[in-house]
Amino acid sequence: MFLDATKHQPQGVTIENCQIGDTVTVCGMIHNVRVTKWGGFIVLRKSRGLLQTVVSNETSLFYDEQGNQVMMSELCREMAVSITGIVGEAKIKDPAAFYNTIELAVSSVTILSRPTTAEVVDMNALKFGDEETLLRYKFDNRQVTLRNPRDMAILKVQSTIARAFGDFLAANGFTQIFTPKIVSEGAEGGANVFKMDYFGKQVYLAQSPQFYKQIGVGVYERVFEIAPAYRAEKHNTSRHLNEYISLDVEMGFIKGQEDVMTLEAALLRHIIATVEKECAHELTLLNATAPVLPEQVPAWKLSEVHEILFENHLCEADHRGEDDLAPEEERAICKYAYDKYGSDFVFVTHFPSEHRAFYAMDDPEDPSLTLSFDLLMRGLEITSGGQRIHKEADYREKMLRRGMNPDAFHFYLDTFKNGMPPHGGFAIGLERITACFLGIANVKECSMFPRDINRVAP
Amino acid sequence: MFLDATKHQPQGVTIENCQIGDTVTVCGMIHNVRVTKWGGFIVLRKSRGLLQTVVSNETSLFYDEQGNQVMMSELCREMAVSITGIVGEAKIKDPAAFYNTIELAVSSVTILSRPTTAEVVDMNALKFGDEETLLRYKFDNRQVTLRNPRDMAILKVQSTIARAFGDFLAANGFTQIFTPKIVSEGAEGGANVFKMDYFGKQVYLAQSPQFYKQIGVGVYERVFEIAPAYRAEKHNTSRHLNEYISLDVEMGFIKGQEDVMTLEAALLRHIIATVEKECAHELTLLNATAPVLPEQVPAWKLSEVHEILFENHLCEADHRGEDDLAPEEERAICKYAYDKYGSDFVFVTHFPSEHRAFYAMDDPEDPSLTLSFDLLMRGLEITSGGQRIHKEADYREKMLRRGMNPDAFHFYLDTFKNGMPPHGGFAIGLERITACFLGIANVKECSMFPRDINRVAP
Repeated sequence: MFLDATKHQPQGVTIENCQIGDTVTVCGMIHNVRVTKWGGFIVLRKSRGLLQTVVSNETSLFYDEQGNQVMMSELCREMAVSITGIVGEAKIKDPAAFYNTIELAVSSVTILSRPTTAEVVDMNALKFGDEETLLRYKFDNRQVTLRNPRDMAILKVQSTIARAFGDFLAANGFTQIFTPKIVSEGAEGGANVFKMDYFGKQVYLAQSPQFYKQIGVGVYERVFEIAPAYRAEKHNTSRHLNEYISLDVEMGFIKGQEDVMTLEAALLRHIIATVEKECAHELTLLNATAPVLPEQVPAWKLSEVHEILFENHLCEADHRGEDDLAPEEERAICKYAYDKYGSDFVFVTHFPSEHRAFYAMDDPEDPSLTLSFDLLMRGLEITSGGQRIHKEADYREKMLRRGMNPDAFHFYLDTFKNGMPPHGGFAIGLERITACFLGIANVKECSMFPRDINRVAP
Repeated sequence: MFLDATKHQPQGVTIENCQIGDTVTVCGMIHNVRVTKWGGFIVLRKSRGLLQTVVSNETSLFYDEQGNQVMMSELCREMAVSITGIVGEAKIKDPAAFYNTIELAVSSVTILSRPTTAEVVDMNALKFGDEETLLRYKFDNRQVTLRNPRDMAILKVQSTIARAFGDFLAANGFTQIFTPKIVSEGAEGGANVFKMDYFGKQVYLAQSPQFYKQIGVGVYERVFEIAPAYRAEKHNTSRHLNEYISLDVEMGFIKGQEDVMTLEAALLRHIIATVEKECAHELTLLNATAPVLPEQVPAWKLSEVHEILFENHLCEADHRGEDDLAPEEERAICKYAYDKYGSDFVFVTHFPSEHRAFYAMDDPEDPSLTLSFDLLMRGLEITSGGQRIHKEADYREKMLRRGMNPDAFHFYLDTFKNGMPPHGGFAIGLERITACFLGIANVKECSMFPRDINRVAP
């Protein structure tokens, strides 16, 4: 027996390439059935959204899995069906309708499989009043509530952002790497690390691929990774996940952190343009407006942000001299940048050294500051990045100054001992950028199966 | 201050677009320096391989990090440098030379950073006689030995396979999903699962995204994932990793497992063509020949394979009636398929039900067999796949028959209770297909930082 590898695509007319008047066969799940005197409607759910089909009592036929003719009343939600019909013009107002300029006049429906019961889970879960109960219900039944077009749209955008991220970087000389998530040293320090037994050794789940992507720069000059990262944070907020997807970038031979920021700005412009082009349906359905990242992106030092906000009376408090951004400042500087420069993004640079990770390069002009940045989007931080130290001696000196034991980082330091170019990079939280992009209040809605302190299932 | 997002790419002449006679500046790591009477050679390492540059005592100038002029003797391996020179024609025989038709006549070299010591790690590790000692040394010093052009080439091909996998599927209506690796139930059963404490609960590292990708079919019809998978296997072989990258596919609305096999064959043809086109340099360097996957791919039932090999006297033993493929059969049927049909790939189908996972669909024509397949490549299994059960009742019945407790799989079964189309899928081990593609004997060489029973660092 032989398989014909050239026959993997559907031949002839499909729902994607059909014209008005064509006869087409399309598979999908029944999202809804409405019976009328003259027949009714079957709303079919496809991967991108809904398709309306119109049943006529006089001409539409129905068949079960064995090919026996049945009545329309046999149909129910979440049946998998194959529908053959004639393509007609239509104007469908439901924003969940991906096919909103056509409908099918049904000639036949064949049931391919059916749910155990017609009492399927309420995907929209609209019966719940308060947001918290609604979210809990949605996440408790995620295996089915994901079939709600709104949730489908969120994760479709998430998927598109991740693909666009990789496409842009691969086209710009970056090599995709796959680094271990089972590690013997935490890269980011602190207590928020998951511990695990590995054949009798204590190991950790990687908080970030920081060490490995820096090593990757010594190999490939420019690298990226799309992979899970783990933070054992005990707080349960709308901004945190214990397992999230980190979009990581690291690039060598930079002249300064501006090279990294410029790359990130160009990358985000590509991602935004791709989502606008490929996910116009999803943006409409979610009532979301794509963010604006102008060619000239505002970028201010932390001290300048304090100053701008104070001088323009944009914050309640005077934050000058503080060593981090207050939440009201994040919101205020984003509003200022949008109002004045039409930008949904603001880079903030030169954070104090003691607040940044040990691998951040200190500013030679003022060693109490670092050549590091945050990128704010619509009032929220979506990225941390910056230039890294690239000399072994500088690492050792800073580690000792911080009370760290350099010997615990043998393989990492060995990388720099063996020579490394000036380099820097950044990481974007995939769920967080998706939430900011779409105006979703809780980042957990942007994770297919969110993990928090109370949730490891489904 | 503003960043100009349009300035992320180098302007003007670069090493990638230069012509003979152009003056070009290029950054890289010094892979080797050779001094001669008249000057010498600096071999520069770039992300894809080596570039030869020629130094003349009379015209080449050298500068240190501060811009002071220095002697050529200052240069050493693993310095990060910027070299300016004139592009000349050349024929470089070293297969590690990515730029093998040009060389640079050096006008100046600027040192950007230098290793702590000129005694850098031996990346080639050629001093070791036996394979095992060599591999141990390579993996112990992976942070630096990865800079060896041969290892760079292996992981560049790995990266290209992963990108091509996603590109093909995204272009064919598949949605990329990101599923949790911290899970409350093991999908594949058995004891080879890593356990972990998660805020006081016992959880597991996912052996595969099987449950979640099936759920994804109920949402997006067709899904794929590129993510780590974990197997706590205690044996330390050249074919196993405890953490590996799984390329997962699941598709709905199939007519039978042939649809899944046809899709996989077309996908692999795309991957092979992409690697041949984009990684010609790496294939030459590794002395590898891309595998052949003809349009018509051999596909035999397990019982037919036993029969073919027996009838043609291709195995030492008579394996007819056995319920799995013997290793000598894997090799023999691959040789037979290659000799007779010019195919490096063979599908083997209809494995006995008791040897396959519980979610495999039994063959209605012979319920002791399953509609499942393995794909063999050059004598090794690189994929398992098949059609899955899609009815809740069938799951419950099979689980009970196997002594499993359906209640432990509540959310998974709820998916089918709520309706699912006929579906199937497969998974490809990224490191294993890379090894088969390139003829690498040990799959660990195809992992950036391999994890085995004895190794969690670097």
